[in-house]
This record gives sequence, C-alpha cells and structure tokens, in this order.
Amino acid sequence: MSNNVKGYAAQSPTGRLGLFDFERRGLRPDDISIEILYCGVCHSDVHNVRNDWGNAKYPMVPDHEIVGRVLEVGPKVKRFKPGDRAGVGCLVESCRHCGACGKGWEQYCENGATYTYNHSDPIDGTRTYGGYSEKIIVSERFALKVPDSLDLAGTAPLLCAGITTYSPLRHWKVGPGSKVAIVGLGGLGHMGIKLAKAMGAQTTLLSRSPGKEADARRLGADHVVISTDPAQMAAVAGSFDLIIDTVPYKHDVNPYVPTLASGGTIVMVGYLGPLDDFNTGPLIFSRKGLAGSLIGGIAETQEMLDFCGEHGIHSDIETIRIQDINEAYERLLRADVKYRFVIDMASLREDQ
Amino acid sequence: MSNNVKGYAAQSPTGRLGLFDFERRGLRPDDISIEILYCGVCHSDVHNVRNDWGNAKYPMVPDHEIVGRVLEVGPKVKRFKPGDRAGVGCLVESCRHCGACGKGWEQYCENGATYTYNHSDPIDGTRTYGGYSEKIIVSERFALKVPDSLDLAGTAPLLCAGITTYSPLRHWKVGPGSKVAIVGLGGLGHMGIKLAKAMGAQTTLLSRSPGKEADARRLGADHVVISTDPAQMAAVAGSFDLIIDTVPYKHDVNPYVPTLASGGTIVMVGYLGPLDDFNTGPLIFSRKGLAGSLIGGIAETQEMLDFCGEHGIHSDIETIRIQDINEAYERLLRADVKYRFVIDMASLREDQ
Repeated sequence: MSNNVKGYAAQSPTGRLGLFDFERRGLRPDDISIEILYCGVCHSDVHNVRNDWGNAKYPMVPDHEIVGRVLEVGPKVKRFKPGDRAGVGCLVESCRHCGACGKGWEQYCENGATYTYNHSDPIDGTRTYGGYSEKIIVSERFALKVPDSLDLAGTAPLLCAGITTYSPLRHWKVGPGSKVAIVGLGGLGHMGIKLAKAMGAQTTLLSRSPGKEADARRLGADHVVISTDPAQMAAVAGSFDLIIDTVPYKHDVNPYVPTLASGGTIVMVGYLGPLDDFNTGPLIFSRKGLAGSLIGGIAETQEMLDFCGEHGIHSDIETIRIQDINEAYERLLRADVKYRFVIDMASLREDQ
Repeated sequence: MSNNVKGYAAQSPTGRLGLFDFERRGLRPDDISIEILYCGVCHSDVHNVRNDWGNAKYPMVPDHEIVGRVLEVGPKVKRFKPGDRAGVGCLVESCRHCGACGKGWEQYCENGATYTYNHSDPIDGTRTYGGYSEKIIVSERFALKVPDSLDLAGTAPLLCAGITTYSPLRHWKVGPGSKVAIVGLGGLGHMGIKLAKAMGAQTTLLSRSPGKEADARRLGADHVVISTDPAQMAAVAGSFDLIIDTVPYKHDVNPYVPTLASGGTIVMVGYLGPLDDFNTGPLIFSRKGLAGSLIGGIAETQEMLDFCGEHGIHSDIETIRIQDINEAYERLLRADVKYRFVIDMASLREDQ
C-alpha cells in the first residue's frame, strides 16, 4: 500500500490551511496504519499553526485527536488487526527506557517524547504529521483501542481534552467524597466536569460567565460559581481538594487559591507561561499547591478510554468538514464552539 | 502560684526589646505551666517585632521555640507532671473540631489557630505572649514531651525550624531512595539537611554561597550545588523529588524548577509573599508542583521530637543571654549565626 497521502497543511504562520500531498513513513514491524475517520480540533492546533510557541515547522499537518480503523499491521503487531477501531493522541513515540517512561509517563519522557505532529521521528528523523490526513502510521505501543460502546466522532477529543483532565483527576486521587472545581468551560473544561462527576466527585464549575450555568449543570456540574463575584467566591473558601484550571491564556490564578481546602492543589492544564504575580503566602498557610499536568501516559489514556466506554462519556462536539477548518479556527479563537470541533474526514475524499 | 511574670518585650516596631512585667492567664483544668529554660530565636520573631507583616500588637513578648520544665498541672492534665521536660512551639490553641484539626493539622485550623504570641486566647481574649519570659501556661493538648536523650538548649529550635522542615519531608513521603534538595543554609536549612539525611534521603544543598560546602557536608549533605552556576544546576536537572526552599525573602524560584524530577514538588517554607514572575510551563511539562507548608500539627511535632530523640538530632546553636537579644536580632538579619540563637533563660533571673 502506498504511503502517499493527501491531507490539509499550513504552509506558514499567516497562511490558511489547504490541500497538501505528502509521504508518510513506511510501516515498521510493530507499526499499524490507521485510516483516519475523525479528528478533534484542539486549541493548541491553532497555537502551533500560528507559531505562537516559536517552534513551528512548515508545512505542518496539525491534529492529535485521531480516531479511525486499522488498515494494515506490521508482522510484530499483537494488539491490533485490520478493521479494529484505533486512536492516536498527542504522542507517537518516547525513549521507552527512562524513569518517566518506566512509570508509564511517556508524556514526561526524560529524553523527550515525540509529538504526533510538528516533531521528528526519533528513528529516521522524518517529520511527524498529524491527523488532517487520510491515514497515519504509528507503533502499536502508542495506539489506543477504542471501546465498541463509544461513538467514534465523540471519542476523538478524548485523546487530548479527555486525557488532559483525566490524568490530574487520577493523579490527585479524585473519587467519591472529593470536591473538584473546574475553571473554564471549553473543550477541556467540559470534559473535566463530565469525568470528575463520573468519578463520584462533587463537581463545581468556576466561570467568569453567568450564561454557562445551565450547560454546566447539563454536563454534570453540581454547582456553578461566578469567579468574578467576590461573595460567591468567599462562600466556597476552603472547599476544593482539586481545582483544574483549563483557561488557555494568561490570567490571575491568585483568586482561586483561597477556594482550595487545606492540602488542596490547583493544576494548570491550559496556560503554559509566566504568571505576573503569584502569591505563595496562601499556599504556605494551608499547605496548598500550584501544579501543572500535561496530557497523560499511554496506559493511562487507554484507562481513560475504557472508563469513558463504561460510563458512556463522549465529548460534546460540532462536526465539520475539513474544508471548513480555517473558519473553525477563527470560531475557536472566539470560543464559539460547544465544545469541540470534530472533522469528519470523509470530507477529505471530496478534495482532488 | 502567681501568674505575674517578667519577660522581654518590644513596645513598638522601632524600639528595642527590654524588661517587661506582665500577667499570664490563670491555669485552666487541662493546662500546664512551664518554667522556661531555653528559647530559640526565629527569623519570624524579627519580622513580628518590626511589624513587617502589619499585624503586630505591642507590647509583644516574642518567641515560639520554648523548652523547659513543668511547674504545675491542672486537675484534668494526664500527660504531664511537675518536673517533666516540656516544649511549646508556634501554636497554643486551635478550634479542635474542624476538618483540618480532625486530621491533626492544627496549623491549618479552618477557624484559625492561636499562635503562641501576638495573638488572642480564644477563650478569654487575653493576649498571647511568647517565650522570652519566666513561664508559660498552655493546654497540655498543645504541649510537647521532650525525649530524655535530647539536650534542652539544642531542642528549642526543633519546635519551629525542626517541624517546619520535618512536616514537608513527611507529607511528601521522603525516605530511603528519595532525592531531596534544601535551598538555603540557615536555621531552617540546616535542620532540613539533618532531617532529610536521617530519613534516608540523598540530600543536596542548593546554595548561592560557595563557602558553605564544608559545613553542609558536616551537617549531612551528600552534595552541594551552587545555584548561581548554570553548569552545576544543569548537571542536576530532573533530579529531585522534593525541594524545600527555606529562603526567607523574595527571590526567583524559576531556576530551581528544572532540577525537580517529573512529579516533584518545590515547597516554600521561608518566604511568604508574591513572586514577581513564576513560569507555569515547566510545571506542566513534567507534572511538577510549587507548594507551601507551615510548621506542623501537634502530633506531628511530637513525632518529630521523638524522631530527633532516636536519631540524636539537635539544632546547631549559639547560646546567648536575654540581655543580648537586640544584638542577636541584628546579627540574625546579617545571617551571622550558625545556625540558631538560643537564649539561656537563666539570664532573665539576673534582671531586676
């Protein structure tokens, strides 16, 4: 089978994404190739395409929320066969032998994990290209099995937005009796609410926008607190064991800290960068913490998919065609999506 | 027995400490009175006396590192009898019923713990006065037993400097195989090194000053890293499970974060206040955390004293007379002490 594929790529930080023909690397013995059926659109795709983080390489085929069906398997593949449902998230390789990899934390690989796009294959140095494409080739070690009970389109965003919120919920041991708050109701936040609720936590949305209450409750939130209202924030002082802050831009984190219980942690998963002013005093006076968390390891991502399969959890999505990706990026920047765009990759076959 | 006592007090933020006669509250049924034999001098005493935190009340009798012998016991006291060795740390009361108190975290009491000085007794509203005095009266619930194997003078600083470093070491589960770094070699830092080493951790001092290496090794450090040397800091990238930052003034915390291992935490115990710029990115890319920790609970403080008794751990001290307290404060501000001043309170009896 040829590894020439068509996809959609950005050619520069200012350009629009358009049709792009390229070659995928060949199938290795432990590889599978996957026909891509659906791709979730992550806020980080827009950052990468626009070179907001200064490391963009063009042409860039974005996307790391990929689901489809297995086309081919290499001779050493054990867990997949052609026709199986399969997913690929943010990682396609890691060193496999460092301390972090040994713990199943491939996302924190000490020798540097290989991201699904805008990165280099560690074996042959070929460029990694993401999901806006007909197919992807990946080691079965980094491919996920998608439970039969899950709808494929609504599963795609689980591979980034889902695992990004699932991993801190698990790492900080959320379960029945836990009190969890989610800051921000977007792609990550809506998954955080669903997952925390399904784990048995009392779940609160902390939002700047009063208009989100009904939707938050529909998604599973027990409470909604308007974070710009000092009285509402004072009423939840000392409440939360864990806060997951999904806001993807620089913002003031200090007001959330007093709402943590003693020993509680606020985990940043959306914004990567400096805080202008962060007060350590409130951390000290109640043994609180500010932490960060990045997606999740491969075994944990599989655990998350299985958990979602058991609990019937999907992302809330709006399905689009690949030809609409540029407009979708603009809408994403305006937070005009509930709650994740998913591209029906059948649309790619219409392009010649 | 009269509760009129003499002590040393500050009368204003700018004044020197001098002789002061005052009345202690009366003995309640579960109280003990303690003849004060030694007092450690904590950096926070200077902050409090000079009203650096804006909440000073004068006259102020400082000190919360108190050891002595029991004089009297109330009728309901069970754990102490006259003549017993006893200590009082930073806390003399808490609500005893909130979630934090229930966990033995009286220092994080949700209704506000009562500090040993510059605070108000929650029952009768009388002022709390610290250790620069002939005696102190405290509920046995907040008094500590001092193991017979410990020298009393070298024990006094354990009640703040010791527990402040012991509590995060225990909370973050340090033991054999752990890699711990201590930032700063002062009153807190020298205890952090001794305690981390005694718990079996590989222990590193991170210091700006090359001159501290020999002393750090004598105290138990396996390694000394000069934190202003980028090459030395790069050599320990990704190393530490826990960093305890004891530096008591505003400083840049960012350079320490890369030296944490994945999942590691840097805990602030010295500086309480805003950081000008703290970068969340490195937290996210290795699931690291910035946390705070404040002294320790009463049961944990007893555990720490027992641990020090078993391991023969004292503070390194320079003994002074109470009449020298004003000069000692000046030297403390110049970091001119190895590593804690302890007042021999017998000197107080010379004053009329």
